[in-house]
Amino acid sequence: MTHHVSSMLDTYPKDLGDIDRQKLAECIEACFECAQTCTACADACLAEDMVAELRQCIRFNLDCADICATTGAVLSRQTGNNVETTRALLEACRTACKTCGDECASHAEMHEHCKVCAEACRRCERACAELLASLG
Amino acid sequence: MTHHVSSMLDTYPKDLGDIDRQKLAECIEACFECAQTCTACADACLAEDMVAELRQCIRFNLDCADICATTGAVLSRQTGNNVETTRALLEACRTACKTCGDECASHAEMHEHCKVCAEACRRCERACAELLASLG
Amino acid sequence: MTHHVSSMLDTYPKDLGDIDRQKLAECIEACFECAQTCTACADACLAEDMVAELRQCIRFNLDCADICATTGAVLSRQTGNNVETTRALLEACRTACKTCGDECASHAEMHEHCKVCAEACRRCERACAELLASLG
Amino acid sequence: MTHHVSSMLDTYPKDLGDIDRQKLAECIEACFECAQTCTACADACLAEDMVAELRQCIRFNLDCADICATTGAVLSRQTGNNVETTRALLEACRTACKTCGDECASHAEMHEHCKVCAEACRRCERACAELLASLG
Repeated sequence: MTHHVSSMLDTYPKDLGDIDRQKLAECIEACFECAQTCTACADACLAEDMVAELRQCIRFNLDCADICATTGAVLSRQTGNNVETTRALLEACRTACKTCGDECASHAEMHEHCKVCAEACRRCERACAELLASLG
Repeated sequence: MTHHVSSMLDTYPKDLGDIDRQKLAECIEACFECAQTCTACADACLAEDMVAELRQCIRFNLDCADICATTGAVLSRQTGNNVETTRALLEACRTACKTCGDECASHAEMHEHCKVCAEACRRCERACAELLASLG
Repeated sequence: MTHHVSSMLDTYPKDLGDIDRQKLAECIEACFECAQTCTACADACLAEDMVAELRQCIRFNLDCADICATTGAVLSRQTGNNVETTRALLEACRTACKTCGDECASHAEMHEHCKVCAEACRRCERACAELLASLG
Repeated sequence: MTHHVSSMLDTYPKDLGDIDRQKLAECIEACFECAQTCTACADACLAEDMVAELRQCIRFNLDCADICATTGAVLSRQTGNNVETTRALLEACRTACKTCGDECASHAEMHEHCKVCAEACRRCERACAELLASLG
């Protein structure tokens, strides 16, 4: 997927301004990956025998999936300017990924899907933080 | 729609805690309404003869639609606890609605759809602000 | 919400063609309502003591919520023409609503939220079927 | 991203049944990629000087992005069984990708972003068709 994300940035018909294109591409990719992984982790938790103990994890997964998908979409748009909203959304996405990643990490030893999901959340949390920092 | 939003809160099987149920229902309803209206306004702007001058408005509309849809979904969940993320998301949604509402209001006299959309954005911005305030 | 859906159709700047505007507005409204209700019902099922027996219902709710949200967005666009896709999507939405509505109805007596959700699914299923029929 | 999609299927705690896991993973990945690419292509078209001539392309892009995102989410869930809805949704997604891919391909020589997008649409159309065929 990274290939297409970068290709779309490279073929955008106008000037992209002084945004860090590498960090932007990495964040878009991480958001879509985290949205998919969290959707699958919510579903895997639902299938566990101990589902009743995984309610909080499922809730975090569902919220994180929605927020990452929306953040990935907003970051995929370059036309006009929506910096203030982008910044606030990146903060929300970073928070959602940290919260979900912490929860998943806490039962990573028991559930392999939570281990994979914690990694996707960490990567996305980091990508949001780095993009935010680069926005100045 | 308000009827169903409230009915679902009323039939939630556990304690909702000390959240202001009226403000929550109003905000969920406003988010879904604003998501629909912004999606339609982006499309109506795209159909205008002067579409080239409405690029910024379309961008705001598309971002606002995505963020409102996600905020409406996250607010529709009561299981577990995701307060920090909810708060950050409400800030992002309020910002998106203010930005989009200001833009739409600026050409409300020329485009009726922007006038309707500005109202939906204002309502949602207010609902997010009031719910945020009630969260303490 | 119906008010805004109709207002946006009324203020669309070009000819809407020979689509049944009443059925279209009803279907858009039903899709957004069903998306919200199914999201809330998945969450309410997750909170039930007997969550392990509600896995199938939660799965249907989550799928139905996603499909209704997308159908509501696609139907909110009038620019250009995307009839073949719209038709196929309405079929998918009708199927999702029937499946989810049947499941929710089957435990409506035990869970009030499933009763409310079954109604929203039935309404949306009907609205999709009627809009499909009117498309010829 | 393919890595995470496959990892989540591999760590799913129950039997996946007789679904073709390779085709499923490929289709999930293609859906998320196409959702991102179509979102970016709608935005790139909006930025073109000749935006007024790209209205139909933008409409197809926006619809295709929404449908691919939803299809990718539904396919990411394995709990319970939602075959009939999945099948109908895959048909809708295939149709959306074919329609959008044809349109983008028709101005691929003029707009590089449409060329990249046409490839993502073709890949996703193929992946949906192959998964549908494998469902029997």
